[in-house]
Amino acid sequence: MKYITELEAFLPKDRISTNTTILEQHSQDESYHTPSLPVVVIYPENAEEVSRVMEIANNHKVPVVPFGLGSSLEGHVIPYHGGISIDFSLMDKIIDVMPDDFLVKVQPGVSRSKLNQELKKHGLFFSVDPGADATLGGMAATNASGTTSVKYGIMRDQVRDLEVVLADGTIMHTGNLAAKSSSGYNLNGLFTGSEGTLGCFTELTLRVYGIPEMILAGRATFHTIDSAVDAVVNILSAGIQVARIELVDEDSIKQVNKYSETNYAEMPTLFIEFRGNEAGLMQDIEFTKEILADLNHDTFEFEKDTQAQNKLWEARHTVAYAYKHGFPGKQLMTTDVCLPLSELAGAIKSAKQALKEYNLDGGIVGHVGDGNYHTTLMFDTENPVEVENAEKYNKHIVEYALNRGGSCTGEHGVGIGKMKYQAEEHGKALQAMKAIKLSLDPNNILNPGKIFPNE
Amino acid sequence: MKYITELEAFLPKDRISTNTTILEQHSQDESYHTPSLPVVVIYPENAEEVSRVMEIANNHKVPVVPFGLGSSLEGHVIPYHGGISIDFSLMDKIIDVMPDDFLVKVQPGVSRSKLNQELKKHGLFFSVDPGADATLGGMAATNASGTTSVKYGIMRDQVRDLEVVLADGTIMHTGNLAAKSSSGYNLNGLFTGSEGTLGCFTELTLRVYGIPEMILAGRATFHTIDSAVDAVVNILSAGIQVARIELVDEDSIKQVNKYSETNYAEMPTLFIEFRGNEAGLMQDIEFTKEILADLNHDTFEFEKDTQAQNKLWEARHTVAYAYKHGFPGKQLMTTDVCLPLSELAGAIKSAKQALKEYNLDGGIVGHVGDGNYHTTLMFDTENPVEVENAEKYNKHIVEYALNRGGSCTGEHGVGIGKMKYQAEEHGKALQAMKAIKLSLDPNNILNPGKIFPNE
Ligand SMILES: Cc1cc2nc3c(=O)[nH]c(=O)nc-3n(C[C@H](O)[C@H](O)[C@H](O)COP(=O)(O)OP(=O)(O)OC[C@H]3O[C@@H](n4cnc5c(N)ncnc54)[C@H](O)[C@@H]3O)c2cc1C
Ligand SMILES: Cc1cc2nc3c(=O)[nH]c(=O)nc-3n(C[C@H](O)[C@H](O)[C@H](O)COP(=O)(O)OP(=O)(O)OC[C@H]3O[C@@H](n4cnc5c(N)ncnc54)[C@H](O)[C@@H]3O)c2cc1C
Repeated sequence: MKYITELEAFLPKDRISTNTTILEQHSQDESYHTPSLPVVVIYPENAEEVSRVMEIANNHKVPVVPFGLGSSLEGHVIPYHGGISIDFSLMDKIIDVMPDDFLVKVQPGVSRSKLNQELKKHGLFFSVDPGADATLGGMAATNASGTTSVKYGIMRDQVRDLEVVLADGTIMHTGNLAAKSSSGYNLNGLFTGSEGTLGCFTELTLRVYGIPEMILAGRATFHTIDSAVDAVVNILSAGIQVARIELVDEDSIKQVNKYSETNYAEMPTLFIEFRGNEAGLMQDIEFTKEILADLNHDTFEFEKDTQAQNKLWEARHTVAYAYKHGFPGKQLMTTDVCLPLSELAGAIKSAKQALKEYNLDGGIVGHVGDGNYHTTLMFDTENPVEVENAEKYNKHIVEYALNRGGSCTGEHGVGIGKMKYQAEEHGKALQAMKAIKLSLDPNNILNPGKIFPNE
Repeated sequence: MKYITELEAFLPKDRISTNTTILEQHSQDESYHTPSLPVVVIYPENAEEVSRVMEIANNHKVPVVPFGLGSSLEGHVIPYHGGISIDFSLMDKIIDVMPDDFLVKVQPGVSRSKLNQELKKHGLFFSVDPGADATLGGMAATNASGTTSVKYGIMRDQVRDLEVVLADGTIMHTGNLAAKSSSGYNLNGLFTGSEGTLGCFTELTLRVYGIPEMILAGRATFHTIDSAVDAVVNILSAGIQVARIELVDEDSIKQVNKYSETNYAEMPTLFIEFRGNEAGLMQDIEFTKEILADLNHDTFEFEKDTQAQNKLWEARHTVAYAYKHGFPGKQLMTTDVCLPLSELAGAIKSAKQALKEYNLDGGIVGHVGDGNYHTTLMFDTENPVEVENAEKYNKHIVEYALNRGGSCTGEHGVGIGKMKYQAEEHGKALQAMKAIKLSLDPNNILNPGKIFPNE
C-alpha cells in the first residue's frame, strides 16, 4: 500500500510495525467490544512526525486512530476501518513543571502515575484518577474523570492548552497559560472529549494542585443502598466540601475482598475523603457524623495514616479488575450514566432491580457526588442470551437517565458503545456536532465510525 | 425592505421598531467604540419567534445581532453591518429553581441581580458578578467572570445547558442537567463565549451555589502595588481558599472615594473575602495575617456585618462608573489581559509605568487571583493624540501579556476591539475557529464582523 511506503520513507524501522502481535495489541480495549486490526502501527516521537503522518493519511484518505494505553471501555481505539494506529507511548516526557502557576506541560503518552510521582517532588498533584493508569492524552481525549472530580472537576477543567495536529497536518494550540480567557471560541473544551475524532494531541498543559494541609479518608457503611445515596445528597446539600465520595455496593465489596484480601464489611459503603485545613476539616467531619447518624448508618471509620488511606483508595480503584478476576472467561461491560443528583437514588434502585430481572452478574460503584454511577457487568460474549440481556440492561439504564435529564456517559465517552444513544441524547445538536467534525476533518480520517456512525 | 415586511407579518407592532431612539439605544455599548444603527429592533417572547426571525434573516442574508443589556465593552452589540438587533429584554422569566440539583433555568434577558433576589429565597446564589447588572444571556455569550471566579469559576463553568437558535432557525440544546458528561462534543463550552456569532440563546440552565455558613470580607492596604501582588501570589500558593481577592490601585481608590463618598485610604488595596465553615475560615484568616505581615503591609481590616460588606463590594464594582463620573465628556477604554500568576507583578508594574509614559488618565483594578487585571482609561475620542496614545497603551498591555503565555481578554471578550490581536494570540487555531463558524453559520449572518473581520 502506497501510504505505508510513504510512512516507511521517514520513520525508522523500529517505529513502524505490521507485526501481528503489535497489530493485535492495537485492535482492542479493556471491554467487551469486538477487536479489529489496524493495518499498521506507528510510534511518533514529536508533533512534526505526527503532522507528516496526518498529511500522508489525509492525501490517501486512510483512517488514523490515536492510541494511548488502550484502557478505554467503549471501543474507542479499535480501528474498525483499518488504517494507521498512532501509538503515543514514546512521547512520554514531562516537559515542564511550573509550580508558581500550578501548571505542568507533558507529552500525551505520560501516565497519570508517572506524572504524580514527578509532581510530588514539588508538593503538587494531578487530580484526575481513572481506575486504569491511563495516559494524559487518552484522558483528555475521553474527558476522563474520577473520584476527586466532585472537588477538583473533570479532565476538561484541567486543560489549559493542547498542542493538536489536525487532519490536514496543521499543528496548532487550543489555549494558553492564563487561568481564564474570553478570546475566541473555546477550543480547549471542544478538543477535550473529542475521542481522537478531531485531532491528535501532541502536548498538554494541565492544571495541578498543591497537596492540602490535611487529608482524612473514611468508610461509612449502611444497611440499605438508599440511605447511602441519601447520605451523599444530604452531605453535599449541607455545603460540606468533600474531596471524594464514592459508593461501592455490597456485591462489589465482596469482589474487592476476594481480590485484594481485605475484609471490609459487605454492606453498601461510602468511601469519603476530606481535605483542607485542620480546623475546617474537623468541623466538616463532625457535621458529617450528625448527618450519618440521622440516617441510621452502621459504622463510620477513619484511616489516618497515608498508607492505610492509599490502600482504601486502591481497593476502590480495583473494583473492575476484581470483577474481571472473579469471573474468568467473561467480558466486562460497564454502564456509565450521569444524572442530576435528585434522580440518583431512584436510578440506582432501578439498576439494582434490573440486575436481578436480567439475571446478570455485577455490582454498582459510583462517583456519586457527581451523580455518576457504574454497573460493572460480567457476561459471556459467546452466550447469546447473556449478550442480549447485557445490552438490554445497559439500554434500560441509559433510557432511565436520558428521561430524567441525564447523560448516557458521564466519563467513559461514546466510542462505538454509546453511538446508538447519541441521537436521543442530543437531538438536533447532533447535526451541529457533525457539521463541526466535517469542517475540521472533511475526509473523515480521524477515528472514523466513533461518536458518529461512518456514513 | 422585504425582510422587514416578513417580520411585521408575525410580530405585533409593539415588538418591532424602527424608531430612531430605539435604534440609537441598540447602536452602542458602554465603551468608546463608534456607534452604528441597526435597521430594525425586535423583541421576541420565545424561542419559536427567534427561530422564525432567524429563518427570515437567513433567507435574505441579513445580519442579526443579539442584544442583552448592551453593557459589553468591546463593541460586541454594535450592528456595524445593519440588519436586525434582537433585544431579549422581554424574555426575562426565571423558569425553574431546582434547589436539590443546585440548578436554575432562566430566559436570557434575566439580569444577575433579579436572579439573585429570587435565589436568596432558597438559600442559594449565582456566582458570576460583572460590574454591570448584565443579562445572563449576555454573560454567557461573553463568557463573563468576576470577583468570585477565583473560587467558583467563570461563566463557562456555570453553564449546564443552553437552548440555542442557530442561523438557519434550528432550535437545539447544548447540554443536559447532569453534573458531567463525556457524550459528544462540548457544545456548552463552545457556545459560551461565542459572542452572538454562533446562535441566539433562548434559555439557560445554570449552576447555583448554597449561601455559605460564614462570609468575612476585609481590606488590606500596602505601601507598594508590588507587595499587594506578592500577597496574592503567596496567599494562593499557601492553599488558602479565598472566595475573592481584588486589587484596586491608589488612583482607582481615589475615584471611588469621590464617587461613593467613602474614605478608604488611598493606597494599593486588596479586597479579600473568605467563605466556609467558621473554624476553617478562622484558621485561613490567621494564616493570611502572617503572610501579610511578612510583606510589611499597612492595615488589614474586616467588615463583619453584611451591610458593610455589601458596601465594600459595591465600592469595588463602581470603579468604572466612578471614572466615567470623574471625567465627564471622556470615553472609557478598559484593558483586560489575563496572565499566568507568575507574570502578574511584572505586568502590572509595566502597566503603571506605561500610563505615565503615554500621559493617560486611569488606574488599575483586577481579579488578580485569576491573573486578570484592567486599566480603566479615560480619554477624549475627539482628541487624536489621546486616541492614539490610548490605542498604543492597550497594544502595549496586550503584547506584554501575549509574549508571556497570556490572553488579550480575560473576560470582556473580543467584539471588534480585540479582533486585531486574534491572529497573534491564536495562530493557526484561528483558521479552525473560522471553519467552525462557517459550518454553523454559512451565510455569516450572526453578529458578522465580530471576533473575525467580515471578509
Ligand atoms: C479498570 C478501569 C477503570 C476505569 N476507570 C475510569 C474512571 O474512573 N474514569 C474514567 O473517566 N475512565 C475510566 N476508565 C476508562 C479509561 O481508563 C479512560 O477512558 C482513559 O481516559 C483512557 O485513557 P487511555 O490512555 O487508555 O486512552 P485510550 O484508550 O488509548 O484512548 C482513548 C481515546 O482517546 C484517543 N486518544 C488517545 N491518545 C490520544 C492523543 N494523544 N490524541 C488524541 N486522541 C487520543 C483514542 O483515539 C481514543 O478515542 C477505566 C478503565 C478501566 C480499564
Ligand atoms: C461597569 C462595567 C463593569 C463590568 N465588569 C465586568 C466584569 O467584571 N466581568 C465581565 O466579564 N464583564 C464586565 N463588564 C462587561 C459586561 O458587563 C459583560 O460583557 C456582560 O457579560 C455583558 O452582558 P450584557 O447583558 O450587557 O450583554 P450585551 O452587551 O448586550 O451583549 C454582549 C454579547 O452577547 C451577545 N448576546 C447577548 N444576549 C445574547 C443571547 N441571548 N444569545 C446570544 N448572544 C447574546 C451579544 O450579541 C454580544 O455579542 C463590565 C461592564 C461595565 C459597563
